[in-house]
Amino acid sequence: MSQVSADGPRRVEVVEVGTRDGFQMETAVIPTAEKIRIIDALTAAGLRRIEATSFVSPRAVPQLADAAEVVAGIARPAGLVVEALAPNPKGAERALAAGVDEVVVFLSASESHNRANVNRSIDASLEGLAPIAELCRAAGKPFVGAIAVAFGCPFEGDVPPAQVGRLAAAFAGMGADRLVLGDTTGVATPRLVASTLDAVRAAAPDLPVALHFHNTRGLALVNVQAGLAAGVRIFESSIGGLGGCPFAPGATGNVSTEDLIHFLQQEGWETGVDLEALIAVALDVERLLGRRLPGQVMRAGPRDRLHPLEGARCAVG
Amino acid sequence: MSQVSADGPRRVEVVEVGTRDGFQMETAVIPTAEKIRIIDALTAAGLRRIEATSFVSPRAVPQLADAAEVVAGIARPAGLVVEALAPNPKGAERALAAGVDEVVVFLSASESHNRANVNRSIDASLEGLAPIAELCRAAGKPFVGAIAVAFGCPFEGDVPPAQVGRLAAAFAGMGADRLVLGDTTGVATPRLVASTLDAVRAAAPDLPVALHFHNTRGLALVNVQAGLAAGVRIFESSIGGLGGCPFAPGATGNVSTEDLIHFLQQEGWETGVDLEALIAVALDVERLLGRRLPGQVMRAGPRDRLHPLEGARCAVG
Repeated sequence: MSQVSADGPRRVEVVEVGTRDGFQMETAVIPTAEKIRIIDALTAAGLRRIEATSFVSPRAVPQLADAAEVVAGIARPAGLVVEALAPNPKGAERALAAGVDEVVVFLSASESHNRANVNRSIDASLEGLAPIAELCRAAGKPFVGAIAVAFGCPFEGDVPPAQVGRLAAAFAGMGADRLVLGDTTGVATPRLVASTLDAVRAAAPDLPVALHFHNTRGLALVNVQAGLAAGVRIFESSIGGLGGCPFAPGATGNVSTEDLIHFLQQEGWETGVDLEALIAVALDVERLLGRRLPGQVMRAGPRDRLHPLEGARCAVG
Repeated sequence: MSQVSADGPRRVEVVEVGTRDGFQMETAVIPTAEKIRIIDALTAAGLRRIEATSFVSPRAVPQLADAAEVVAGIARPAGLVVEALAPNPKGAERALAAGVDEVVVFLSASESHNRANVNRSIDASLEGLAPIAELCRAAGKPFVGAIAVAFGCPFEGDVPPAQVGRLAAAFAGMGADRLVLGDTTGVATPRLVASTLDAVRAAAPDLPVALHFHNTRGLALVNVQAGLAAGVRIFESSIGGLGGCPFAPGATGNVSTEDLIHFLQQEGWETGVDLEALIAVALDVERLLGRRLPGQVMRAGPRDRLHPLEGARCAVG
């Protein structure tokens, strides 16, 4: 299966994950109406893939207890694909009943991260995901497998690309429609992106791959460039850079959607997104949360935004 | 002249500009002894090119009135190249008398930025730089020509690569030993880096080129990657990301030296720098200035820094 979309080789799809990945980490619970308003603004800006929420236990993550209401409440412009995470079959049933278009499941590439995240071994996680794949197949909905810490683990360090390949093959065996490689703590590098993609494709040649980078060490966009060079055409990002890096206080997490779109557009990729509208959403989310977000283009403006000459002092010398 | 250094094709040189570019923008004047202590810590970490200061008028920029004392006071480990900016012949005379190894002059690629910065036309700037080139030649010291806003101007927008080529040829005609292309407001993109380097090399084939990127829109390292791919082996950066972006309050300026070194080392380039020692200097500068700097690796740590598993909660799902 080609990873170049039907729209042509210069088209890139961007999956917005901020309302799931970002909002689940906020200590304050965002009102449901505000979540819906923000998702609608994101789709109005042209985004056509939204990872809207996660059907986790409301007791475990009260921030996302309104998952079904959010999915029910958002506008559905033509072509919109609403994704949601499901950590277990019960969550998947709720997600499918709520009307999501694609169900995303996840595990970690390292044993220690998988245990810290879901308190089971990787093999136990794989067994637990198979019934979710069945539920999706029965419902005729795509099933997406996400691999956390795919480029390195904060506890164990390097993750061998062959291990990521093994998990990719397992997802392919379950009939997954797409694989997401998550750089959960921002440790991917361009060379590692290339070698990991090689291993994944050797193990699961027909499985389309999406990449999800964190900008923790400033490397998100150079890693996106490495993914593009290797033929990847789907990338995940978060409005304003919402969503943190849990192992370094104050460090940047998800690459911001505005920064990603700005980069892609400047490099000649079609995204279908209105960048200025997207920046307005990022600033709106910043006001909603009452704290500064790490997005950079939302602050500096796109590269072609001009400044008044009058009164300017440059002081280069 | 090859741009691959004598040390081999995987060697990259990094020029630290923070003590010049960063300190000149601080409202507080940094004590001379602190400047010397920081430069010495940077060279102890392995950096071998330091743009230490600028020999500007002490009245115009009191922050750098101690330029000669700084150059006289720093340690000179083997191989260290001390660079300094000189905006005019008087500054160049002071720089050479103070014992700098290389003199850096500058102009802007756009007329409006050149006027806003030095209140003259580009051609008038070029005329004014010729005597500095003569002073350097007479002193037997290299002469470096820096072009500000080489990838776009905050007032005019796009700068044609041919215009940068014209200025490169002018510097080559003055006998410059190196050209620096400065991305003063962070508007460079990988494609623009490639096309601008093409134009510069067509106009001045024998002039080595260094690149100086700002991370204003998150693009610094992907632009470095583009420069590396085009054969550039000298990059400028600033410890901690010191030095601002004068046109967007709160926006990031210079790419930080730690982030650049971390990236280069991960991609297999030799830099001769001890990254952990460099991070310690960045944290020291942050304490000295009493405000948060934009460097990312100084906050998150290098990618291979491990975290304790005990008590960790990940909450990916």
